[in-house]
Amino acid sequence: MNPDISRERENASFNVEILTNILDGGVEKTRRRREIESLVISDPDFQHEDLNFLSRSERYDAAVRKSAQMILKLREYGISDPEEIYSYKSVAKGVYHEPFGVHYVMFMPTLNSQCTTEQRKKWIPLAESFHMLGTYAQTELGHGTHIRALETTATYDPSTQEFVLNSPTISSIKWWPGGLGKTSNHAIVLAQLYTQGKCHGLHAFITPIRSMKTHMPLPGVVVGDIGPKFGFDEVDNGYLKLENVRIPRENMLMKYAKVEPDGTYVKPPSDKLTYGTMVFIRSMIVGESARALSKSCTIAIRYSAVRHQSELRPGEPEPQILDYQTQQYKLFPLLATAYAFHFVGQYMSKTYHRISGDINQGDFSELPELHALSAGLKAFTTWATNAGIEVCRMSCGGHGYSRCSSLPDIYVTFTPTCTYEGENTVMMLQTARYLVKSYKQARAGQQLTGIVSYLNEPQNRIQPHSVSYRPTVVSINDLASLVEAYKFRASKLVEMAAKNLQAELQHSKSNEDAWNNSSIDLVRASDAHCHYVVVKLFEAKLSEIGDTAVHSVLSTLALLYALHGVAQNTGDFLQAGLLSVPQLTQISQRLKDLLSQLRPNAVALVDAFDYRDEMLNSVLGRYDGNVYEHMFEWAKKSPLNHTEVHESYHKYLKPLQSKL
Amino acid sequence: MNPDISRERENASFNVEILTNILDGGVEKTRRRREIESLVISDPDFQHEDLNFLSRSERYDAAVRKSAQMILKLREYGISDPEEIYSYKSVAKGVYHEPFGVHYVMFMPTLNSQCTTEQRKKWIPLAESFHMLGTYAQTELGHGTHIRALETTATYDPSTQEFVLNSPTISSIKWWPGGLGKTSNHAIVLAQLYTQGKCHGLHAFITPIRSMKTHMPLPGVVVGDIGPKFGFDEVDNGYLKLENVRIPRENMLMKYAKVEPDGTYVKPPSDKLTYGTMVFIRSMIVGESARALSKSCTIAIRYSAVRHQSELRPGEPEPQILDYQTQQYKLFPLLATAYAFHFVGQYMSKTYHRISGDINQGDFSELPELHALSAGLKAFTTWATNAGIEVCRMSCGGHGYSRCSSLPDIYVTFTPTCTYEGENTVMMLQTARYLVKSYKQARAGQQLTGIVSYLNEPQNRIQPHSVSYRPTVVSINDLASLVEAYKFRASKLVEMAAKNLQAELQHSKSNEDAWNNSSIDLVRASDAHCHYVVVKLFEAKLSEIGDTAVHSVLSTLALLYALHGVAQNTGDFLQAGLLSVPQLTQISQRLKDLLSQLRPNAVALVDAFDYRDEMLNSVLGRYDGNVYEHMFEWAKKSPLNHTEVHESYHKYLKPLQSKL
Repeated sequence: MNPDISRERENASFNVEILTNILDGGVEKTRRRREIESLVISDPDFQHEDLNFLSRSERYDAAVRKSAQMILKLREYGISDPEEIYSYKSVAKGVYHEPFGVHYVMFMPTLNSQCTTEQRKKWIPLAESFHMLGTYAQTELGHGTHIRALETTATYDPSTQEFVLNSPTISSIKWWPGGLGKTSNHAIVLAQLYTQGKCHGLHAFITPIRSMKTHMPLPGVVVGDIGPKFGFDEVDNGYLKLENVRIPRENMLMKYAKVEPDGTYVKPPSDKLTYGTMVFIRSMIVGESARALSKSCTIAIRYSAVRHQSELRPGEPEPQILDYQTQQYKLFPLLATAYAFHFVGQYMSKTYHRISGDINQGDFSELPELHALSAGLKAFTTWATNAGIEVCRMSCGGHGYSRCSSLPDIYVTFTPTCTYEGENTVMMLQTARYLVKSYKQARAGQQLTGIVSYLNEPQNRIQPHSVSYRPTVVSINDLASLVEAYKFRASKLVEMAAKNLQAELQHSKSNEDAWNNSSIDLVRASDAHCHYVVVKLFEAKLSEIGDTAVHSVLSTLALLYALHGVAQNTGDFLQAGLLSVPQLTQISQRLKDLLSQLRPNAVALVDAFDYRDEMLNSVLGRYDGNVYEHMFEWAKKSPLNHTEVHESYHKYLKPLQSKL
Repeated sequence: MNPDISRERENASFNVEILTNILDGGVEKTRRRREIESLVISDPDFQHEDLNFLSRSERYDAAVRKSAQMILKLREYGISDPEEIYSYKSVAKGVYHEPFGVHYVMFMPTLNSQCTTEQRKKWIPLAESFHMLGTYAQTELGHGTHIRALETTATYDPSTQEFVLNSPTISSIKWWPGGLGKTSNHAIVLAQLYTQGKCHGLHAFITPIRSMKTHMPLPGVVVGDIGPKFGFDEVDNGYLKLENVRIPRENMLMKYAKVEPDGTYVKPPSDKLTYGTMVFIRSMIVGESARALSKSCTIAIRYSAVRHQSELRPGEPEPQILDYQTQQYKLFPLLATAYAFHFVGQYMSKTYHRISGDINQGDFSELPELHALSAGLKAFTTWATNAGIEVCRMSCGGHGYSRCSSLPDIYVTFTPTCTYEGENTVMMLQTARYLVKSYKQARAGQQLTGIVSYLNEPQNRIQPHSVSYRPTVVSINDLASLVEAYKFRASKLVEMAAKNLQAELQHSKSNEDAWNNSSIDLVRASDAHCHYVVVKLFEAKLSEIGDTAVHSVLSTLALLYALHGVAQNTGDFLQAGLLSVPQLTQISQRLKDLLSQLRPNAVALVDAFDYRDEMLNSVLGRYDGNVYEHMFEWAKKSPLNHTEVHESYHKYLKPLQSKL
């Protein structure tokens, strides 16, 4: 153990295990999670070379092997609880994804929710035994977020009782689905349904794409890998071009909409029913943000505790870089953010399950709020995390740029969350739509419920033109007061956006133009709303914590999160009259105090996330802090070191020298 | 040609060629640059497969081949002007680097500046004929920016008149030098010089590391590749461990310091002499920022002109995504930044050459300012560009994540500039040191010259406590007035930082602690200073532009750059009393107007950067806008598509299915 990092642990003011239990949701959950993680760590089948040393094809190969192993082992161990499966896979996959990801996350759930009883009987056993390997083919080369514009067609032919699937244009080629390129033999294809000469919009069709015997592409199916990406090397994101591919009528998922044998189209009873999966996945992504950021903080903070650099005092040894105020200023607000997002993730997951229960009993009343919240928070947390991972990486200096730090892998694996499952700006605008609607209802005297109820509160506290004449409302040392300030800031920005939208409506050709011309303000309002929710949930979490020492350190983190957010957005708070100019100086000073206060607990706070070395896969983030010797060991395994002299020397350098 | 993008070009209000000439520095420079670029583009030897389809070893191989080819061809064509070499290589290398990079940028210049006449005679011809392939080995596993702490030792042995080089610890292993792993046969090693029992600090030693005949590592030399990184796959960044490696006394670079045969150490006359290279490289990086950002903007804006998505008006076709206000708000400020940085790069390069002339004549007076400016602007421009490239990538939705967009490559190739040649935070603090010193001189009544002369101006305009009682000083439609506002903001933040530092000195144990405890404020002051310089240089450039239409569009860009910066930092401007709260609303509105104003010229503005398709290597950024068909063509070449059925199917999937 590196003595620097041991000392850090000795100096912590709280019991790390208690905090880990809080993060897990209880002592027993921590115990069971660790038990499951150990199954992988002690399993010789999961020992493998660093994927960074392999070619893309080898990485894909290794990932398929691992997916197959995980299926067999989870059955062998009898692990079936989703959370436990998650724990198991988290270790086995490390920071990477698996080619079967879409099979689990989209293919199976869609079958489960949209099959008729007949269809279930036929398809579910095949999917569960992986004889059907499935993906979900929605996005097309020319069409993403706006799914109504998808071009793939499924035309019903009553003479054979088949659908004929086609990709009529280049831009209609299915593009991006994970596992589509090489792994899957079936795809749920989203296509415009044509029957009896009429288009009925998008429907889902189970489409065989490869032979279940030979795995060769079926006639009319042009399928392949879309090529290398920023990350996701292990996953065969694919393309799919359909040329008069015929599938039986029964392959349309018909739990809701139907096509009768004669081609008669039967409408679905409600369109809210397919709403849930999307909301669920977005809520899950909030948790993924917390995990990616907490992993990155773990690596950067542990490394900062063992890395020494420059001098603070002449003649003395180089200090740990964690002692530099600028380093603390980079990392501790992110650490606070990781905790904040963890608690928001817990809240979203709990809320989703509660509302799911209601929905199953026919009560949709809370769905719009959850929909708006999951959209906005997905964008808010992924954007913050995306930028935060890179701050962590760069805070490790040059070594963060090495793949051995794992930070490049964390980044490239995480960054697509800003785009997939709803592009972030589009998500923010969806939330804004809900906020503006709620604002109007509040103005109309309606009593709002849930998180947006603050829009009911009197706006007269916010008078931008009289800033300096009113007492400031914020006490910067009081978290509750800061939560209020965030609330009024959100309220103010929602009001501004709504008013700008109203003003635009008077000049614009259409509602849509007015919306577009206000969209910068609308995104800003959503952002402020989400920020408020995060601060509020962090504060709420504190009240659940009994242990005094843990409560104290988390309170410091919460205050840092809230104050740092104010410091990054002082214009908003000044404009809303929530801050006075002299307070800005106090905030700067207070932030510095909080950094110093957190300094002795920084390593313990990342230890509490409890990522095993096998999960971080980072030389810089090692628990024992023995960074340099392991970097050297790792480097020696680089493929370029397999020979002392690279063949390019004989091919190009020697001939070059002989010519000069 | 895609009709969308043709229409964009037809609608531009200015002549693109005129703007290109301005960017190049004249009509003749444009002509010659294009001529040189065409040499590569028409050269069949430079046609190659996309590097993204190759393994790391293949990429390195291809890069060595290309480096060797470039050397021969440049000689063949007789191209020797550094700018022309740069143009040639820009096309040949695309967004990548070459393994010989450090040979050109550090090894050769160091030989040139630090060899004695004798040494020049011996080494320069060998280096110029590439019989010596060199790198510059400074950074160690445990030591980066703070080079005084380097641990490698060179101990003089008068009995054999040799230096004995050693890496005494793991943390002393040389780490990161480009071309060190496999390519180089010599390294200039920075080591602590010991002679006659005394350490004389760092000196440079020409150290043979591989046989010039067989390329095998020499005895006592442990050398290799440091393993895969975020990017720079083509470059063999290496490690070097020296175990009693003996080199002749003459291998110490002795133009300034010397070791006599008997071991007597002779001090160098001045330590300013080695200052220049660093300043030069940092100035160059400012230009690299402009190039990376302008390439990214070219890709994102062209793609946004041909990509259609969602609907603005019901029933109408999907609009170009460039019509979305949120998309414009992401991209146009970055476009303005790319132009701003281009002009700053031109200024830095000009200033460097002017001051170099002075230095050669013994006049060092302007060096400190240039040093401070190049450090701060290097950090300011690389940070902004680093974040900006990712905004461009994500603004292209999912397709930005594909390697075919080239944006991932641009990012991973660029991002090390935030770390190398002086870590950005350290750079900002160096600039701050100069600013604080200048501030104190100004307070002491000294008349400052150069860019910091604003610190001489009366501070009484800035009275934070009386914001609302004073008229606002900024006219938000007037660039000159905004430049003033940036100046006063910088002035204010320098003052605040200096005062905080002063206050800290009263509590702190040492100057160094006080400095550390003020470093957040100091970085902020440097940032504001650099921001001011950029806005000021952009404004200054406008006065040189004769063409009315070009002047008009660049003025709009400059105003957007300045106002966007104000909007991102409203707290500072409010705090300094430079803005009033009601102006914030006006700024938001004005920004929207500027976005609309730029919209018709966006494509023309990126066309003016004049990057040939071969240089961008981006399917999304194609000049002809024919994106989708070329994405499909590109994907088909993915190595995973070499077989229809990947071997992993037979190895893992079939066996899995048979077990379930």
